[in-house]
Amino acid sequence: MSPKITTELLKQLRQVMKNPKYVQEPIQAYIVPSGDAHQSEYIAPCDCRRAFISGFDGSAGTAIVTEQHAAMWTDGRYFLQAAHQMDNNWTLMKMGLKDTPTQEDWLVNVLPECSKVGVDPFIIPADQWKRMSKALRSAGHDLVPVKENLIDTIWTDCPQRPCKPLIVLDLSYTGVSWRDKITALRSKMAERKVMWFVVTALDEVAWLFNLRGSDVEYNPVFFAYAVIGMNTIRLFIDGDRMMDPAVREHLQLDSTLEPEFKIQVMPYGSILSELQAVGAGLSPKEKVWLSDKASYALTEAIPKAYRYLTPYTPICIAKAVKNASETEGMRRAHVPKGTVTEIIAADKAEEFRSQQKDFVELSFATISSTGPNGAIIHYKPVPETNRTLSVNEIYLLDSGAQYKDGTTDVTRTMHFGTPSAYEKECFTYVLKGHIAVSAAIFPNGTKGHLLDSFARSALWDCGLDYLHGTGHGVGSFLNVHEGPCGISYKTFADEPLEAGMIVSDEPGYYEDGSFGIRIENVVLVIPAETKYNFKNRGSLTFEPLTLVPIQTKMIDVNLLTQKECNWVNDYHQKCREVVGAELERQGRHEALRWLIRETEPLVRVQ
Amino acid sequence: MSPKITTELLKQLRQVMKNPKYVQEPIQAYIVPSGDAHQSEYIAPCDCRRAFISGFDGSAGTAIVTEQHAAMWTDGRYFLQAAHQMDNNWTLMKMGLKDTPTQEDWLVNVLPECSKVGVDPFIIPADQWKRMSKALRSAGHDLVPVKENLIDTIWTDCPQRPCKPLIVLDLSYTGVSWRDKITALRSKMAERKVMWFVVTALDEVAWLFNLRGSDVEYNPVFFAYAVIGMNTIRLFIDGDRMMDPAVREHLQLDSTLEPEFKIQVMPYGSILSELQAVGAGLSPKEKVWLSDKASYALTEAIPKAYRYLTPYTPICIAKAVKNASETEGMRRAHVPKGTVTEIIAADKAEEFRSQQKDFVELSFATISSTGPNGAIIHYKPVPETNRTLSVNEIYLLDSGAQYKDGTTDVTRTMHFGTPSAYEKECFTYVLKGHIAVSAAIFPNGTKGHLLDSFARSALWDCGLDYLHGTGHGVGSFLNVHEGPCGISYKTFADEPLEAGMIVSDEPGYYEDGSFGIRIENVVLVIPAETKYNFKNRGSLTFEPLTLVPIQTKMIDVNLLTQKECNWVNDYHQKCREVVGAELERQGRHEALRWLIRETEPLVRVQ
Repeated sequence: MSPKITTELLKQLRQVMKNPKYVQEPIQAYIVPSGDAHQSEYIAPCDCRRAFISGFDGSAGTAIVTEQHAAMWTDGRYFLQAAHQMDNNWTLMKMGLKDTPTQEDWLVNVLPECSKVGVDPFIIPADQWKRMSKALRSAGHDLVPVKENLIDTIWTDCPQRPCKPLIVLDLSYTGVSWRDKITALRSKMAERKVMWFVVTALDEVAWLFNLRGSDVEYNPVFFAYAVIGMNTIRLFIDGDRMMDPAVREHLQLDSTLEPEFKIQVMPYGSILSELQAVGAGLSPKEKVWLSDKASYALTEAIPKAYRYLTPYTPICIAKAVKNASETEGMRRAHVPKGTVTEIIAADKAEEFRSQQKDFVELSFATISSTGPNGAIIHYKPVPETNRTLSVNEIYLLDSGAQYKDGTTDVTRTMHFGTPSAYEKECFTYVLKGHIAVSAAIFPNGTKGHLLDSFARSALWDCGLDYLHGTGHGVGSFLNVHEGPCGISYKTFADEPLEAGMIVSDEPGYYEDGSFGIRIENVVLVIPAETKYNFKNRGSLTFEPLTLVPIQTKMIDVNLLTQKECNWVNDYHQKCREVVGAELERQGRHEALRWLIRETEPLVRVQ
Repeated sequence: MSPKITTELLKQLRQVMKNPKYVQEPIQAYIVPSGDAHQSEYIAPCDCRRAFISGFDGSAGTAIVTEQHAAMWTDGRYFLQAAHQMDNNWTLMKMGLKDTPTQEDWLVNVLPECSKVGVDPFIIPADQWKRMSKALRSAGHDLVPVKENLIDTIWTDCPQRPCKPLIVLDLSYTGVSWRDKITALRSKMAERKVMWFVVTALDEVAWLFNLRGSDVEYNPVFFAYAVIGMNTIRLFIDGDRMMDPAVREHLQLDSTLEPEFKIQVMPYGSILSELQAVGAGLSPKEKVWLSDKASYALTEAIPKAYRYLTPYTPICIAKAVKNASETEGMRRAHVPKGTVTEIIAADKAEEFRSQQKDFVELSFATISSTGPNGAIIHYKPVPETNRTLSVNEIYLLDSGAQYKDGTTDVTRTMHFGTPSAYEKECFTYVLKGHIAVSAAIFPNGTKGHLLDSFARSALWDCGLDYLHGTGHGVGSFLNVHEGPCGISYKTFADEPLEAGMIVSDEPGYYEDGSFGIRIENVVLVIPAETKYNFKNRGSLTFEPLTLVPIQTKMIDVNLLTQKECNWVNDYHQKCREVVGAELERQGRHEALRWLIRETEPLVRVQ
């Protein structure tokens, strides 16, 4: 991985920062956030502006360019990767470390007096705008919206915004029709006394209308907004994809309908002017509900007194709790994959996955790393760094796929030769953490951050830790990372866990320059049986949906308690039963023999 | 405990809410917060306005009175107590339960259109004002400051504000002189480029000047404010206590000093006008540092552009990390108390405590409760509820004291007869939780909320839980509850733990109508030895400062792991060594025999 040379690009950017064609007054700094206009985590190539200007293409990071400096903020998952991908025009700001300044503090420190800091108002979430603007103002500077995106002005070969065909998702997959979802949403709106709801997140639009797309790689979503009134539905979407007869029928675009379910289709680009018109026509008490993460541009379209902002939308919360059809689909999506450890390359994994029923695409770029590459937490193999798998190094494979019935995400760490005692020790601590979360029992309504330390306790006892959260929400044939729940030492984006939610359980350990270990299952929150049941508050635990053997060769059995040993054996027994039956049905005898071999019960000698 | 009859009082309050003598326009609701003008947790009798109007005298709660309603918000520690103490004019709002509305939501729901909601601007913290004001404004109402406290206008026999003599604390106790503390504070101010710092919390004033008082029961503090400039020191304090020669000498009031250490003493009541004068005289860039919990009145004295607000002040953070003299003092303060379980009443505990060297007063009202009273988490015995200790009920004693060398806080749960299997089971889970926190190893800089679930895991496995946090910061001959660290599922007031901080470890279990169990030690954060030491980030763990036997009769040994069993035995061995030696020195042979009996090693049969 050689760094991108950015000297010329930065020079051009600094020129347009002073060009009156784009800015009313020269700006002294320009912020390039990570996201797109929908605050997506994964973005389309045309929105990878931060990667274009810096070379760093991890999923999270914010670049700020001033006349003298260029700095990049990113988190522990990406410290190594960002350092490798950026040239020395850039300063890496390691978020989460004590001495790293915040973006605001850094700006206040480097800017000349009374500076103007520019940002694209469509890309910055309203809550971030507010925080940044306040901090800058209190130091005598100004945050200003720059209508034309300055990166786009210098990005001569910027790809086009994708506009791929839509997939109609049948009631057998979704469990609830889009009309019923709209009705439920309107009743939430009535409860809060709001008249309008603006859907800005791509996965929320997709979920609401029971449609899927492929505009963003790995995420089955499409570029669109929606504005739901108590009696109107407006869908902002481009291209001829709305001409598809299946889509028209699904949305009943040509039927005579009750007016409140009649969908008005409008151009994607007209959202701002339409929303401004809504904002201008509001009578007192007519509130408009937006996520506080919606873009500053859209939020500003509604006069302040009429805004109703919440961190989580009702769609985000409804979407997180999977219904029976979705849960059943997620179970099915996880079954026929007994072949993972046979593969020796990520392409092979994709090939195998793509042979499965209901396969659509990968859910994220496969992380296939061996030896020291494994310590780069979100590593993706590219020709320059490609290492040959060997019998002397640990191999880490983190892969997932989108199926019509669900989304998967699994990580296994393997050794094809003889692991060292230290590698086994670390692997076993990670496994103990994985089990501690998976087997945890907790009261209904517990927030995920309270479970995070269970995953770390065994590592902590020996002075080891990992610099990422333990789990994220997983969508149902939607984004592989979704809110509002998760398991992390970070406490934002952390709504209480309830039965039906799906999260990942993925502790790890990373030794810079040597190896990476991670053990990840997707797990479903289910009711638990406890002796006293929290005075009827209800008990919860997790059921692993992922059924892939955990390599027993990597386990130091004597570091496990008997309970942990039993957990591994029960889990492997379930792999045999469910996956084994499917392999038998498919007549894949070699794979079946491998499965039986890999799931031999552990025996603890004491 | 019979409830306070408040019908007449509420009638009077509702009258003054419309009386033009006190309010410019009639107000439709009046908020009575818990705190005093310093946001103290424990308050002087003259500040117990919420208890006066409602009857509920727990340490946390907010009352709101409208023309039709009277409602009280409090947390899980006080649900039972508040329900007992309030008459049916009052609605109890159980905070932390899912269906309980916030104060803002409730107000918006019950108020007529365009209402005015009043509050004493000296009592409400600026951050609460901001939140409440915003929520009310967005619903068409107004939050207004009512200068004269309306409770005081109807409280005819309100006690006077205390003004007790001061205690000068010698360098041997504090480790750092007040001059050095001022110098360190000024260097923090210079770092943040602020010119003034306003000290509003009583324990922060006391800590800064190495003085103690007794204006507030259990808390060795005195009513005062301070305003520290880069070259000036102003101390706002009433009474002739500044005439005390020891105080004058300590503060060098009569010496010729460098001007920047010359303390100007001013009347307590002049803080607002003095601060307004400071505010009016600021030149651009002269910022004033305040806690965001300072009162709205004082915060407003500084024009918005000149305020520098932070959740934790540099004093709060410096105070939390104890220096060598303070740590040594805390160790000494905890030693000579091997007699606790001999007592059969709280008075006896106080009598014993008061015989100890350096004893000043209790650090909080002793909680001495038996049987069902134990389930009232912050129960304090009063004649109406007093139960006789018996051999058939669990007895819970939570007591602590202020010594010149430290502050103590310990809870033990005992049975004088034969505990039931269920009582032993619950006690043992609580003990497992206590040990899990006390023995936890974690990386330097971990926030306390990440340890909270360790205390609950054993209870959770059986479907049991407790509705309070696991630990609070403890002051050095200061408040028994102090910020900014703690161990709680709540994530506010939670700065990273570092060596030298002192917190309590006090999981519990409470069975309504039957019994209460809590096991509490004060513990010191200390460096830990780990195999890999978090890549030199540093490892931390806890050292118990409290050395009081844990009643082994209450333990179901077979529910303990061998490791937990060893922890109890090691802890009891340390009690024998340290406390035993002291008892021997004091010639208290009966107590020594009791200590030996109570610390017999546990043996696990398997």
